[in-house]
Amino acid sequence: MPEIATTAAEDSDRSTEAARVGRRGRPGYDREGLIRVCVEAFNRHGYEATSMGVLARELGISKSAIYHHVSSKEEILDIALSRSLAELERVVSEAESRGAPAVAELEEIIRGSVAVLTASLPHVTLLLRLRGNSELEIRALQRRREITLRIAELIRQAQDDGDLRDDVDARTASRLAMGMVNSIVDWYRPTDDHSDETLAEMVTGLLLTGLRAPRS
Amino acid sequence: MPEIATTAAEDSDRSTEAARVGRRGRPGYDREGLIRVCVEAFNRHGYEATSMGVLARELGISKSAIYHHVSSKEEILDIALSRSLAELERVVSEAESRGAPAVAELEEIIRGSVAVLTASLPHVTLLLRLRGNSELEIRALQRRREITLRIAELIRQAQDDGDLRDDVDARTASRLAMGMVNSIVDWYRPTDDHSDETLAEMVTGLLLTGLRAPRS
Repeated sequence: MPEIATTAAEDSDRSTEAARVGRRGRPGYDREGLIRVCVEAFNRHGYEATSMGVLARELGISKSAIYHHVSSKEEILDIALSRSLAELERVVSEAESRGAPAVAELEEIIRGSVAVLTASLPHVTLLLRLRGNSELEIRALQRRREITLRIAELIRQAQDDGDLRDDVDARTASRLAMGMVNSIVDWYRPTDDHSDETLAEMVTGLLLTGLRAPRS
Repeated sequence: MPEIATTAAEDSDRSTEAARVGRRGRPGYDREGLIRVCVEAFNRHGYEATSMGVLARELGISKSAIYHHVSSKEEILDIALSRSLAELERVVSEAESRGAPAVAELEEIIRGSVAVLTASLPHVTLLLRLRGNSELEIRALQRRREITLRIAELIRQAQDDGDLRDDVDARTASRLAMGMVNSIVDWYRPTDDHSDETLAEMVTGLLLTGLRAPRS
């Protein structure tokens, strides 16, 4: 009875249930879908705490089925981080390419960053929660820091242009501005009633002109 | 040779080294000092990933020496969270007690929150990184939410008073404002060259009047 023997052996495996469900006809994942589910699992449990066994259970497939798509847990992290960093970097370089005044470039980056964050919420959430626990994470944090430094440079330039107040330290202001932008991952849900554009406009407006009512 | 036998047995214990150092005369901790080191360890490794064994190693004392001060890892978390929440709640209730206009109360809360955050950085960092993994954490998150709701209420009131712009949703504005305030834990170090008061003023100013230079 080889069938029964196999089943018994599998019962000692923690991912058996999920693997069996998979074999019963649960639709397979393409690489894209698999990465999405894994990134959501990393965000829920923390990257370190999410083993390949946990991923297999969440996906409802076997570990070897995961290895069909990716070579390691770290490769999934790498793909997710590279993607969100590339999107954010594209926002910065597109804004730069227009040759607009620094203050306009800054506004475009803030607006574009909120748009990336709401459109790619799980990937950006993963990026923002990194602690720098590996070479890969340290490189990703370095790329994030380059973006914040570019924003600080723009703030400094816009201060020189007389468009932004010059009584604030540009580096601190860039950290605080991006802090507000990034905090969105803690509460934003795509089902919320304001569209991403509304939120992007609101954040840009708040950062530029503040909460206070214009003097009448 | 009971001495040698004891030592050999202890060598298999992961906290032996630290425990021995402790016995050699490393200064003991009072409860306060012990909690501080534990909170910093939680922030570095994540609360879940920090076992009593890890805490013993970081403290350089035995687990039983820790139990002399606290009954469990969760008690340390409880103490740290209760303390930072109480400080933040005091800021809110003191601001309320002045009977000032909503916009002034809001400014005082923002300023006071930054001050609490920079003065009690490790405790507040722990609070802000909670995911709600236990009853204790869920209760703490609930108390945090009450503070954000109070801020939303003040923004709404100040909008009605005509002091704050009314083209922004008060709930979203309160989340974004506190998002900026809370993001400070990600980069602030007490050795930085601007004092806590300067930072508190800067954050309050940015949130109220924005980055843009006043029209001349």
